[in-house]
Amino acid sequence: MPSYATNMRLKFPILALTLEVVTIVLYALFVVYDTGDAHGHDGSHAKSNTTQSTSPMTLYPMFQDVHVMIFIGFGFLMTFLKRYGFSSVGINLLLAAFGLQWGLLLQNIWHMHEGKIRVSIDRMINADFSTATVLISFGAVLGKTSPVQLLIMTLLEITIFCINEHLVVEFLGVSDVGASMTIHAFGAYFGLAVARVLYRPGLRNGHEKEGSNYHSDMFAMIGTVYLWMFWPSFNSAIADPGDPQLRAVINTYFSLAACTLAAYATSSLVEKKGKLDMVHIQNATLAGGVAVGTCADMDIQPFGAMLIGITAGVISTVGFKFLTPILASKLGIQDTCGVHNLHGMPGILGGLAGIVLAVLYIASLDFCCYQCGLVMKIPLWGQPPDQNCFEDSIFWEVQEEEEEHEDRLTHGDDSKNKTEA
Amino acid sequence: MPSYATNMRLKFPILALTLEVVTIVLYALFVVYDTGDAHGHDGSHAKSNTTQSTSPMTLYPMFQDVHVMIFIGFGFLMTFLKRYGFSSVGINLLLAAFGLQWGLLLQNIWHMHEGKIRVSIDRMINADFSTATVLISFGAVLGKTSPVQLLIMTLLEITIFCINEHLVVEFLGVSDVGASMTIHAFGAYFGLAVARVLYRPGLRNGHEKEGSNYHSDMFAMIGTVYLWMFWPSFNSAIADPGDPQLRAVINTYFSLAACTLAAYATSSLVEKKGKLDMVHIQNATLAGGVAVGTCADMDIQPFGAMLIGITAGVISTVGFKFLTPILASKLGIQDTCGVHNLHGMPGILGGLAGIVLAVLYIASLDFCCYQCGLVMKIPLWGQPPDQNCFEDSIFWEVQEEEEEHEDRLTHGDDSKNKTEA
Amino acid sequence: MPSYATNMRLKFPILALTLEVVTIVLYALFVVYDTGDAHGHDGSHAKSNTTQSTSPMTLYPMFQDVHVMIFIGFGFLMTFLKRYGFSSVGINLLLAAFGLQWGLLLQNIWHMHEGKIRVSIDRMINADFSTATVLISFGAVLGKTSPVQLLIMTLLEITIFCINEHLVVEFLGVSDVGASMTIHAFGAYFGLAVARVLYRPGLRNGHEKEGSNYHSDMFAMIGTVYLWMFWPSFNSAIADPGDPQLRAVINTYFSLAACTLAAYATSSLVEKKGKLDMVHIQNATLAGGVAVGTCADMDIQPFGAMLIGITAGVISTVGFKFLTPILASKLGIQDTCGVHNLHGMPGILGGLAGIVLAVLYIASLDFCCYQCGLVMKIPLWGQPPDQNCFEDSIFWEVQEEEEEHEDRLTHGDDSKNKTEA
Repeated sequence: MPSYATNMRLKFPILALTLEVVTIVLYALFVVYDTGDAHGHDGSHAKSNTTQSTSPMTLYPMFQDVHVMIFIGFGFLMTFLKRYGFSSVGINLLLAAFGLQWGLLLQNIWHMHEGKIRVSIDRMINADFSTATVLISFGAVLGKTSPVQLLIMTLLEITIFCINEHLVVEFLGVSDVGASMTIHAFGAYFGLAVARVLYRPGLRNGHEKEGSNYHSDMFAMIGTVYLWMFWPSFNSAIADPGDPQLRAVINTYFSLAACTLAAYATSSLVEKKGKLDMVHIQNATLAGGVAVGTCADMDIQPFGAMLIGITAGVISTVGFKFLTPILASKLGIQDTCGVHNLHGMPGILGGLAGIVLAVLYIASLDFCCYQCGLVMKIPLWGQPPDQNCFEDSIFWEVQEEEEEHEDRLTHGDDSKNKTEA
Repeated sequence: MPSYATNMRLKFPILALTLEVVTIVLYALFVVYDTGDAHGHDGSHAKSNTTQSTSPMTLYPMFQDVHVMIFIGFGFLMTFLKRYGFSSVGINLLLAAFGLQWGLLLQNIWHMHEGKIRVSIDRMINADFSTATVLISFGAVLGKTSPVQLLIMTLLEITIFCINEHLVVEFLGVSDVGASMTIHAFGAYFGLAVARVLYRPGLRNGHEKEGSNYHSDMFAMIGTVYLWMFWPSFNSAIADPGDPQLRAVINTYFSLAACTLAAYATSSLVEKKGKLDMVHIQNATLAGGVAVGTCADMDIQPFGAMLIGITAGVISTVGFKFLTPILASKLGIQDTCGVHNLHGMPGILGGLAGIVLAVLYIASLDFCCYQCGLVMKIPLWGQPPDQNCFEDSIFWEVQEEEEEHEDRLTHGDDSKNKTEA
Repeated sequence: MPSYATNMRLKFPILALTLEVVTIVLYALFVVYDTGDAHGHDGSHAKSNTTQSTSPMTLYPMFQDVHVMIFIGFGFLMTFLKRYGFSSVGINLLLAAFGLQWGLLLQNIWHMHEGKIRVSIDRMINADFSTATVLISFGAVLGKTSPVQLLIMTLLEITIFCINEHLVVEFLGVSDVGASMTIHAFGAYFGLAVARVLYRPGLRNGHEKEGSNYHSDMFAMIGTVYLWMFWPSFNSAIADPGDPQLRAVINTYFSLAACTLAAYATSSLVEKKGKLDMVHIQNATLAGGVAVGTCADMDIQPFGAMLIGITAGVISTVGFKFLTPILASKLGIQDTCGVHNLHGMPGILGGLAGIVLAVLYIASLDFCCYQCGLVMKIPLWGQPPDQNCFEDSIFWEVQEEEEEHEDRLTHGDDSKNKTEA
């Protein structure tokens, strides 16, 4: 077992409990149920659906689809790393659990009604959306951070996201129903900026644990397929009810279908023996959902969505194959999950309409993100040294015997008792 | 391959088919669809929703969420045992498939309409609820029983549960919308009573197979995350439609979020190097859902739910760390899954309002449960001897070669042909 | 690494991209959203639900249940093969993504409204249904084909399926709400016909890789349980709203429950030590869903559904145990997944009412299927030679080091760098 200096025993519990207690106090002061009386207009992502139906639970099935994407989709997609699966799905759960509480506060602080934030299903959907930015960024730095750094990143990123979202929606009046820009591109570029700040020269030639094995790739496909299936919900949850919502579902469904064919084709084409690469299949097949996001509810017709999808599938796969290594070697951005290829470029593609503005925005946001990266770099937070990257046993209890004889199950590899070597 | 005396070949099929045939006969006599005409009032857990909507399918999405918790959530949560995964998810499927048929009968025998039980979606939800008690108890004795014992336990436990539920709801008029007491605490203490009766001195120092490995822990996280995500459905499915149902969703959502931070923090705190323990993450993160159950639909405000959650997370984690070993060594209760820490104590916490009454109830129930334990102990049922606990190959066909060369996949480990050693 | 002559590098991308581009052109010409104005009557499987509700999203939750069955259910059910998991879930994703696009076109070409096909949620459900036929057939030939052959099979099979469905529904007026005949039996017998044409004498004695290992069986259970839970949605999605739909849910729920007990009992009974066989548990527990399909919405009462289920469970298990080997040795049909036992016979059982007609139909269809098999046999498509069957590394990048030391994770088994042998 490698030695380490990343003892979380006081700093992590203290930070986690402090954040939770502060959050509870703020909820005690400001947060109530959205039951009964009047609903005020709010500029948050999701339109209140009270005009459509008096049932407060109308959006609940849509909420659960988004919820599954956040906790299963993102969580398992990142389990491709062969020795980092506990962190991938476990820390995903932690960051999203904290992020949704904090996101709900910060998204609605602008829209208080008699000094209170009123929780409804559509606000819970938006809170889940805000955590998506953090989970995307987590993917960029996956394997190279400590839980303390990540909680701090969650706090900072969601704050910036909510401010950004408020400005973009309220003041710029931008329409981005699938959040190609406001969530995907934002999360990707935030993550890449942080990755840049946390650049590790020692990992220039990779790391023996930065890879997958057969079973970790299978676990990751659970994440991929859930994201793929429920993306129509992600893109339509915040659309206006009726025809716009139906269009958002249909456009996403077809964009993803076309993207899948394109990703498979391109993956085969860029390998000299024509073999498929699981990294492409796990990620690039989803790019269509990201790319169609901004105009998901618009009248682009199914074939229009498919054109977007086929483009995204090709670009994303090519990015994984050729661009990610260049980003690492030339720009010092070590993007573990390749979020730039799934959320970054396809997000930009999606927001093409507002791209000039987006570039300017990203430039100033990147400055903020760079500062956040510097905050995260503070040694106190217990970032693991190079050789301990991509290794669960730094932060988790993992059985030692497994590493030698995982399948010799009848020969004393009990995690509690070492009955034999 | 260890030798065994637990040949199920006649006793198991005979019991399973007999139970099924008897059930079909009872259904032929008593069970019809709830279609068309009048619905009578019933005191079962789920309120009929006909006043809200004329569609019989209104509750169907909620039903599927509960269904997923029962079959995927519980089923996979118990796959943490490295050599018992087949039994965990497979026997879970069997017990729940039988339990829901039996539960639907016994829950509604009190509320027949013209001598018939009318099946509707809300009664199917309740039937799934009744199986939860069995699956919780299964967790307490996981690895140490035969399928025959477990079918008998299902028959007895659901019978007692339904009688108990009827008394509690009809005569005591207790409100327990999330079933903290009636399902969770009941299932936990039933399971612990049975575990006590089936105590094995030979397992006093553990068993080499009573533990997890890296991949089994990953499979278990599938169960954990599904339970976590859909618990708001579990706690709200039986709430009155409208505001109470919305409150139940919101309270559960926030209780679980706070509980997660608390469980992670406590898990780190109680380990000398601050490392997280998968057992805590898989289980204690869910305690908030159990604990908030009783008052989920009440006006406790989101921060109230978060206080319940943060308490449950701490208590549950501490229970896993310190209490489970004590229960085993001092009280002779070997609780494989630690159900006492996830369903027992948090269930009590949830039912605090009615705790005195609950204690009295549990005492008398425990007497019944103890008797059931004695019934299960009858040797005919084929309970495995100590050394064969926690081992699938007693009851399942499992490839032998795997145990030696699971990953030497190109070297003749075909399950059908032994082409090479 | 075995040598191979199945270089997909040009033929696969060219075929995939050509199919996608042609599809996009056809969509540009013919496919629009079903928004706003009048809906014409159509004879497709799913009845338009506009009479029930003005919301276009009413069927969306049902759609997602079917979607999960197609992508997670089928995809993971086939991951039982220990070295073919990437292909099972990955190629499943590819074939279904293409199949749904093609199916939506061909199912609705008969019902154009002003020269356009109008996409709505119920048509998306039907499109997913059409892909089920392909995935069932994929199961019959699993491990023995190339991605190019499978794309061709998808194109041909969905075409024939849609023509068949149109004839059966429009001209014969057959009612088959759960598609026991039109999807399950069709897909099974199509697949078996193709398997017959692609018969490999060299596999007469099996193949070392045609089997499962402990973890692949666990992954397959994910598929099984999802299919089991959501089958009520599959059988009710196309039923008339109201009582017929409720009956379809209830009948399927109870048929599956009874089937499960029967499958477990039979599995134990046919093994000399009474041990359960994962193959039976993964597949035969689902036969009840198939068998009750045709009459799911009919008034057969819950006990009637249970009788169907218990029969299907016994027949299916017996089929896996005794019939599949006979089909292989006597009829030259090597049915990898045993689709005949899950979809074939139970599908026939379900369609018993129309069986005579079905037999005649299948005879003529089989002739067409046989022709399709001959088309697939063209060497150009790159079918793998016998020794390379059941092996992902022919078409996927798979880490070599894994095969020797999958669990020696700290000893340099990085997929990118071979730092040590």
